[in-house]
Amino acid sequence: MTIKQVAVLGGGVIGAGWVARLIENGHDVAVFDPAEGAERRLHESLANADAAYAKLFTAPRRAKGQVRMAPSVADACRDADLIVEAVPERLDIKHRVYAEAESTARPDVLIASSTSGIKPTDLQGPLQHPERLLVVHPFNPVYLLPVVEIVGGQQTSEDAIQRAMDFYPTLGMKPVRVRKEIEAFVADRLLESLWREALWLIKDGICTTQELDDIVRYGFGLRWAQLGVFDTYRVAGGEAGMRHFMAQFGPCLKWPWTKLMDVPEFDDALVDLIAGQSDAQSGHIPIRQLERIRDDNLVAIQKALQATNWGAGELLARHERALAQDAPEPDWTQPLPTFRVRVPAHWLDYNGHMTESRYLEAFALGTDGFMRMIGLDAEAIAAGHSLFTAETHIRHLDEVSRDQDIAITTQVVEAAVKKVHLWHEMREGTRLLATSEHLLIHMDLNTRASAEPPPAVRARLDHVAEAHTKLPQPDGLGRHVGQRRH
Amino acid sequence: MTIKQVAVLGGGVIGAGWVARLIENGHDVAVFDPAEGAERRLHESLANADAAYAKLFTAPRRAKGQVRMAPSVADACRDADLIVEAVPERLDIKHRVYAEAESTARPDVLIASSTSGIKPTDLQGPLQHPERLLVVHPFNPVYLLPVVEIVGGQQTSEDAIQRAMDFYPTLGMKPVRVRKEIEAFVADRLLESLWREALWLIKDGICTTQELDDIVRYGFGLRWAQLGVFDTYRVAGGEAGMRHFMAQFGPCLKWPWTKLMDVPEFDDALVDLIAGQSDAQSGHIPIRQLERIRDDNLVAIQKALQATNWGAGELLARHERALAQDAPEPDWTQPLPTFRVRVPAHWLDYNGHMTESRYLEAFALGTDGFMRMIGLDAEAIAAGHSLFTAETHIRHLDEVSRDQDIAITTQVVEAAVKKVHLWHEMREGTRLLATSEHLLIHMDLNTRASAEPPPAVRARLDHVAEAHTKLPQPDGLGRHVGQRRH
Repeated sequence: MTIKQVAVLGGGVIGAGWVARLIENGHDVAVFDPAEGAERRLHESLANADAAYAKLFTAPRRAKGQVRMAPSVADACRDADLIVEAVPERLDIKHRVYAEAESTARPDVLIASSTSGIKPTDLQGPLQHPERLLVVHPFNPVYLLPVVEIVGGQQTSEDAIQRAMDFYPTLGMKPVRVRKEIEAFVADRLLESLWREALWLIKDGICTTQELDDIVRYGFGLRWAQLGVFDTYRVAGGEAGMRHFMAQFGPCLKWPWTKLMDVPEFDDALVDLIAGQSDAQSGHIPIRQLERIRDDNLVAIQKALQATNWGAGELLARHERALAQDAPEPDWTQPLPTFRVRVPAHWLDYNGHMTESRYLEAFALGTDGFMRMIGLDAEAIAAGHSLFTAETHIRHLDEVSRDQDIAITTQVVEAAVKKVHLWHEMREGTRLLATSEHLLIHMDLNTRASAEPPPAVRARLDHVAEAHTKLPQPDGLGRHVGQRRH
Repeated sequence: MTIKQVAVLGGGVIGAGWVARLIENGHDVAVFDPAEGAERRLHESLANADAAYAKLFTAPRRAKGQVRMAPSVADACRDADLIVEAVPERLDIKHRVYAEAESTARPDVLIASSTSGIKPTDLQGPLQHPERLLVVHPFNPVYLLPVVEIVGGQQTSEDAIQRAMDFYPTLGMKPVRVRKEIEAFVADRLLESLWREALWLIKDGICTTQELDDIVRYGFGLRWAQLGVFDTYRVAGGEAGMRHFMAQFGPCLKWPWTKLMDVPEFDDALVDLIAGQSDAQSGHIPIRQLERIRDDNLVAIQKALQATNWGAGELLARHERALAQDAPEPDWTQPLPTFRVRVPAHWLDYNGHMTESRYLEAFALGTDGFMRMIGLDAEAIAAGHSLFTAETHIRHLDEVSRDQDIAITTQVVEAAVKKVHLWHEMREGTRLLATSEHLLIHMDLNTRASAEPPPAVRARLDHVAEAHTKLPQPDGLGRHVGQRRH
């Protein structure tokens, strides 16, 4: 069953994050949220998410799905191929919502609860079709963090689990199936244990919230972002391996190295202490700005891991390859729209504008877009066909800053035998920011020698080169550095 | 007191990491480690660390300090300005080592223990000069993770703490002072609590080590790498702030959301289960390779955060500015050595070589190096003086791959009025990889208009431009894209 229409029940932080991921990947979404101002808040959240995606995806983005506010749960679920529940964490509310959803939903449609702790068996009790309910637990911000925990209850069918495991990767996500249901599943168990210890450390005056955060983000947070817990310790154990590490640190379990045999009193004094320290730490940064900082860093870290082809970055690369396959056929008679991106924070430099090497990165991504259009896609590259740049000339004509949208168009100057001569123009709106001229050579990646492109690529190259002979010659073509204007 | 000579007692994973950080920052180190093969293992670790630094630092590196193996603790400590203790975590061993250290060390020299859990008060008990002992707890890999916990005991002097807080930033580190001493300090309390919960999750069959690691590294690990724990929740709390977040999640403390009121039996069955799962997860990757992957990712993530100017990356940027100030005066009569780096994993592309935009990044860092040499350093830029690139021509002459060392030399073609015309050459050894030609314009960053450089910069520019008139004209100067060779 193909999922096209999705009902999202609850439009809070988590629900809105789901809507963002769904429409970004081309799904139409009906949202039910009866709260005052829900629609306005939803669209603010969607704008935030769109800003992040515009920076995260350097591959062509899908045509966005539509969002509509539904007047009721029943209405939202009537034509839904998937129901995402993100209502408050109270069993009675959730049961009421499920009953109304089942009054109109097709009986085979999955109901995916975003609960962060309630067991699916407890959720599915009163359902008419309990086999279709499961937990799909995401993390904030849902539009940027890829993991979801997939948890089935006693009555959840294997088919429902499998459909979820197949669907969420199409949203660029990483579903991890939890083997047995327990309250809070895996992630929130880990988070809760550390959170309890953190509360003790603050309450006992060992450190402040700022100091604790610094210890995490300048320390083990950098390890966990890429390796997780066990692989980090595996490396620390060295050649002797995990068994050695365990032998060394096993005895700590007997030591008084946590206060976790007890829970701190959650009284006003503790809340005041922590809220006060947190204000001192980050109160000077408005929350919306802190959110943007977080998102900019999540984009930068995932792009860094994409470059090392690891973890969340490797997943992003795979999702971008899937996006690229969905890109529509261009109008070959015009300069080709080969790349667009919103300038992310990590593309700026000390001059407060996009740094010069990111101009070339954008142009090179334009070349990649052109390569995909002529059939030199990931598959062709894996088979050993690629273009190498031999020579480049760039004119930087205007500045561009963060959060501005840039787009590249590409004109073929010449494409003969093994050579491709390209002309890119970069614009922000109608403003010309830069041009670049490239001489590329078709290569055999196995011999690392120049080679004729495969026939299908040749045919497309000839087609576009012929079409582009009718375009005017670009202004600035053939310039050398420092040349005076005619 | 300036620290020049350092004694490192214990050359294991932690001790070797300290040696790496110390020599990288110009300190001479005497290492005592009586274990069989200690010197060989130390130099293997130093080679690893050097490989990471060669990729991490895009600023000029300091002249490395010397390492020697000392025949005894007493010998290592005789001329030391700082004593770093990284011997096994047994109080009797540490006390024996301190006694021998004090037999030769000057009485005011700090003794910094790397212990990850023992209280400094317990460590300093029998010392002749207990006021100089403190804990400086680093994290693996010490050469790449910046944080250290600074913990004083009952007898530690405020002066000793202050000297440590002043010294460790000069190594590019982030010292966080722990306010009260407790076993395991802050980080290992947090780690231990999560570790205990993780052991339960594996033992109870809720997930495997692989699944748990995926949930961390595709999820909250990406948040903690930049914001830590409390700031992450602060953002999640939204406009309503930390108090709202606390109110919402406070009640969880009463829920059965962790097993932390109990500790799992640490028996052979648990060790076998975890070691077996860990082997299935990552046993196919040799440990040395996993270490390189971890280091490559740590470099990439910290460089990404340097680009967003946040957390560990902002710290790295500050350290690089300090390194740049230490760079020696160049020989102005020759092409200037303006940049060198070892090609990091995140600079490669799908063709298996350094991607074209990183060529320009390297050349642009060469331009930055040149700017520093003529006085356009961070301070001058902050005052509003900078160079903007107007036009660039690059020839890609040869491929270069990861872990190869590249170096850039820079020749001034012309420097008149507001214009600077530069020629860069990039080499791996003697192999010419690429050339680039740039026209740069001196700018006033406040008006965003071209402007004459300040007099001191003008004088240096004239000096180097004059000196470089005696150099031969570069081969390829003034080329346009696709031009035939003469």
